[in-house]
Amino acid sequence: MMGRRIYLDWNASAPLRPEARLAMISAMDVLGNPSSVHREGRAAKAILESARADLADTFGRNVDDVVFTSGATEAAALALSGRDLRASGVEHDAVLAWTAPVLETRKDGVVQVDAPSKCTLQLANSETGIVQPLPVGISVSDATQAVGKIEVADRLRPALMAIASAHKLGGPKGAGALLLSDGEDVMARQKGGGQELGRRSGTENVAAIAGFAAAVKAAAAEVSSGDWDEVGELRGMLEDRLRDSNEDVVIVGCDSERLPNTTCFAMPGWKSEMQVIQMDLDGFAISAGSACSSGKVRDRNALKALGVSEAVAGSAVRVSFGPTTAWAELEAFAENWNRRCREHKARRRKRPTALNSSQCRSANIRTPPRVQASGTQARVN
Amino acid sequence: MMGRRIYLDWNASAPLRPEARLAMISAMDVLGNPSSVHREGRAAKAILESARADLADTFGRNVDDVVFTSGATEAAALALSGRDLRASGVEHDAVLAWTAPVLETRKDGVVQVDAPSKCTLQLANSETGIVQPLPVGISVSDATQAVGKIEVADRLRPALMAIASAHKLGGPKGAGALLLSDGEDVMARQKGGGQELGRRSGTENVAAIAGFAAAVKAAAAEVSSGDWDEVGELRGMLEDRLRDSNEDVVIVGCDSERLPNTTCFAMPGWKSEMQVIQMDLDGFAISAGSACSSGKVRDRNALKALGVSEAVAGSAVRVSFGPTTAWAELEAFAENWNRRCREHKARRRKRPTALNSSQCRSANIRTPPRVQASGTQARVN
Repeated sequence: MMGRRIYLDWNASAPLRPEARLAMISAMDVLGNPSSVHREGRAAKAILESARADLADTFGRNVDDVVFTSGATEAAALALSGRDLRASGVEHDAVLAWTAPVLETRKDGVVQVDAPSKCTLQLANSETGIVQPLPVGISVSDATQAVGKIEVADRLRPALMAIASAHKLGGPKGAGALLLSDGEDVMARQKGGGQELGRRSGTENVAAIAGFAAAVKAAAAEVSSGDWDEVGELRGMLEDRLRDSNEDVVIVGCDSERLPNTTCFAMPGWKSEMQVIQMDLDGFAISAGSACSSGKVRDRNALKALGVSEAVAGSAVRVSFGPTTAWAELEAFAENWNRRCREHKARRRKRPTALNSSQCRSANIRTPPRVQASGTQARVN
Repeated sequence: MMGRRIYLDWNASAPLRPEARLAMISAMDVLGNPSSVHREGRAAKAILESARADLADTFGRNVDDVVFTSGATEAAALALSGRDLRASGVEHDAVLAWTAPVLETRKDGVVQVDAPSKCTLQLANSETGIVQPLPVGISVSDATQAVGKIEVADRLRPALMAIASAHKLGGPKGAGALLLSDGEDVMARQKGGGQELGRRSGTENVAAIAGFAAAVKAAAAEVSSGDWDEVGELRGMLEDRLRDSNEDVVIVGCDSERLPNTTCFAMPGWKSEMQVIQMDLDGFAISAGSACSSGKVRDRNALKALGVSEAVAGSAVRVSFGPTTAWAELEAFAENWNRRCREHKARRRKRPTALNSSQCRSANIRTPPRVQASGTQARVN
């Protein structure tokens, strides 16, 4: 039986926007291959080039500098592989896979970039929402989490290349883009038919790209109209509710500039995974960090790079939402989380071994087999 | 004004099957990220794993041996890059990009494989439809054009890895798969979140994969039920019509085993590109070879490898269709092509320089500027 669900995991994947859904369904009926010279092929190509113009517009780039990919992970590989750029530990695994994690991160979350042309720096962090000011000439910026939530054309201007993903902003899973700038180019990794000006071969995912562009346009309009400022206000109200009931709750990055929709908070001693599973059972989808590591226990790179304690990192969860999230939903979440937190603390007080937070943490690592099995199953299902 | 159109370019991209369309639209409403542990994530994961089981079934492989990719081009790179396998010139550019084209092809189209474990061999050719018997232990087989048109589980059994694409069999553009076999593995090229058992990172394209699986199932059912045998009969009738009106038409590979839906025929002296453009103006979408080379003039690898003359290669076109194509449509095409061919020959007879086919060919290479410009525009639109 499926009770009422409240989805607060937009940073893992945002709900598909109606505009994107319509654009995709409409593009499905265009049967040509965009590389074909006949009318059906040209119709498919026209959808592609219209989408490219929409992205170029939103990102303040030339149309020839928009390279469509299957997602941000592919765009990251295209921008970063073989280049040995430097990065901070706050970056996503898809960036860290190709870079040396040597850049220091200040306590307020700002990454200390030494030589911009040899570095990559995310525009915003998926787990904490912390936004980075980009130094002029930064080689690559992963803007995946920022696009559609804050203004990006101006913020990305200092970056020679930028990475974006459709499904984080209400487009479909399976589309992304690498945005280049004048004079910048990349070596193709997918070779063959020579699509995307030779930078990325393979028949283009016309429907997903159409949905991507529709979502980008809708998101940009929302950002301009102030809808996301209201999201930020709700986030503030949510955090107040958590603080009011729990003087020991830790809100990560709350003094830094953050994405308006993201809050990462910790209750030392209450293990992240246990919170996520409990909230899921109660009808709320939240996460313990980013959701890109299927089936493996996650390192919390972003939190560790910020220098938070193991106790905080191990008990942090992320709530992320958007303009269609109602305050009543966040209020229901806060109430539920506060209640479960009280119950957790009550249980802990009864355990003779759990007298301080460091012991609690150890106790939680020795999770009872039944609960552990359920967690494992959830990851592989 | 858009007149009646007849789409005969299924090998470039097949029309989306209704089953695939429905599966995609249904999957669009599943908002979770398949890597998320909560219920919404598990719902997305369930779609993915159901699709994986469908593919494993059709291809006669284990579920753990199905790796979803963004298409055949990515699957080819995953299977072939860094391995220096040997190939024949009949392979697709996405295969030739990673291989040494040293294998000989007999006049009947059969590729002469020396050491199977060091070679790759397509199951069927996109331009001619010629089907290859696979030697036991062949390292990789590109089955992109064969899947959904002929039985593949048995035919692919000798191959350690096989490549497939969704949109060639009525699934969406933007999904493909690499099929492994017991003990075979690949080095990841997209790194990051560790999806697809670490073989291909990046959030999976849930909707496209759902459409892929629905299309694979529907296509397999059609193949078993004999629908594609009827397609082969129509192809025979079409070729008879062309032969009956033109004793000089060359049908490439007509004595070899071919895909039932593909015919490649040439009228020496009538340039391929001119035929494609003329047929397009007349309402028929056909192609001059495969449609994967956006904006560039194509080499006809497959035809050259067969040893056909330059005159034949330069005047060959491909007609490809499927079970929803009616005989009346093919008949209308044959009638139109025969008429245009007669007109072409009549024009040619009036030209004093065009006395024999070799001179005609040279004359056609020096295409008048106006026509050349129109052809160029068609490719980039």
